[in-house]
Amino acid sequence: MTLHLLPISDLPEIRPGDDLGSVLSTTLVSKNIHLHAEDILAVTQKVVSKAEDRILHLDQVHPSPEARDLAAAVMKDPRLVEVILKESLRVLRQRPDLLITETRHGFVCANAGVDRSNVDGADTVTMLPQDPDRSARRLRKQLGCGIIITDTFGRPWREGLVDVCIGIAGPAALLDLRGTTDRLGYQLSSTVLCPADALAAAAGLLMGKGQNIPAVRIRGYKWVEGISTAASLVRAKENDLFR
Amino acid sequence: MTLHLLPISDLPEIRPGDDLGSVLSTTLVSKNIHLHAEDILAVTQKVVSKAEDRILHLDQVHPSPEARDLAAAVMKDPRLVEVILKESLRVLRQRPDLLITETRHGFVCANAGVDRSNVDGADTVTMLPQDPDRSARRLRKQLGCGIIITDTFGRPWREGLVDVCIGIAGPAALLDLRGTTDRLGYQLSSTVLCPADALAAAAGLLMGKGQNIPAVRIRGYKWVEGISTAASLVRAKENDLFR
Repeated sequence: MTLHLLPISDLPEIRPGDDLGSVLSTTLVSKNIHLHAEDILAVTQKVVSKAEDRILHLDQVHPSPEARDLAAAVMKDPRLVEVILKESLRVLRQRPDLLITETRHGFVCANAGVDRSNVDGADTVTMLPQDPDRSARRLRKQLGCGIIITDTFGRPWREGLVDVCIGIAGPAALLDLRGTTDRLGYQLSSTVLCPADALAAAAGLLMGKGQNIPAVRIRGYKWVEGISTAASLVRAKENDLFR
Repeated sequence: MTLHLLPISDLPEIRPGDDLGSVLSTTLVSKNIHLHAEDILAVTQKVVSKAEDRILHLDQVHPSPEARDLAAAVMKDPRLVEVILKESLRVLRQRPDLLITETRHGFVCANAGVDRSNVDGADTVTMLPQDPDRSARRLRKQLGCGIIITDTFGRPWREGLVDVCIGIAGPAALLDLRGTTDRLGYQLSSTVLCPADALAAAAGLLMGKGQNIPAVRIRGYKWVEGISTAASLVRAKENDLFR
């Protein structure tokens, strides 16, 4: 088994209301790129959010007193902080220019995934899709292959950002090897792997930043059926030692 | 640019004192697999640790009173806890059957990377290489390509394990895009990516568990020169909000 990742470039600029599945399909056809049922198409959150109109112009945002206070403390735009708070269940950590929050989906990331870059005009922000697993299921139905929606998250303890899976349809998000034995017969008692995040990280190597590569076709990964949601990747609070 | 990952299977069982670079080289030649200077060979920690004799028989370990107390609290083998403590700067979190510690390298992971599986006999453990960046540099010198040494770590907040880079030689571990602009001219002000971990995660998709795939050749990733150490991935304590 070898793994082959193919970047999909030259997608037209995605506008709110666009049918992303159709746009991807048309682009793939024009490039003579085919998708097999066993392929996985990794799609960046940014184009999904744009198509789903998860875009706000900061001019239209009226920060609450709470957002103003927090914005002053972390030296951010109060309108941006208002959006971040709306997208968050709670703020986990704060320091100047950084808010780490838990999003409504349960993801822990900087600024609740609210992002200013790569949208026309500096005063425009994108938010994460409301239900990225649903977005993935829709794309899967349209494109007929496995789908992973990716975003770029920081991590505690380690420098640098890596792409993770925020929505998935098709492959099991987790691969539970508990109870299986390794080749020497020793039980792999506690190993649950997360192929969803590994696939997202792999695709992220080609997506780069500031380039127009919103999707990557992954071929050759033998995925298994199972619970295929990014929601299942969110560790329950009672099992989380760091929340 | 497309990315191609090729699993390297059928490496002979690695024994303490083996010259891992030579063994890898011989295996590659026998399979008619070539390495280019621009390739990256991801190598799992397990074979590096074995070659470097980072193996202990628990029979030879005499747990300290501290290790016995902690072992009783978390219901682990006191000899195993003794090894974990020896490998750790400190214990960050504990609960039954789980110790999350900071290793002497600064990595935060379960059990300080001490692992019972995949070594002959259940009473044998492997420890992480003492200086995985040095191990990577040695392999780079022998094999002539980029090297990443991987291990499988858990993460806070997210279920499942993903492979990360614990040693690297060649590619810059981090890709600093701060100050660059995206294609719409918006400044990507805070983006530092971690290709080292993304490459490790990608390779991990093929390494699986319980299979004999200790190395993966990654071809097509355009890596850049720069600081090539996993030590540079350890976030300084003063910048870490979760330590």
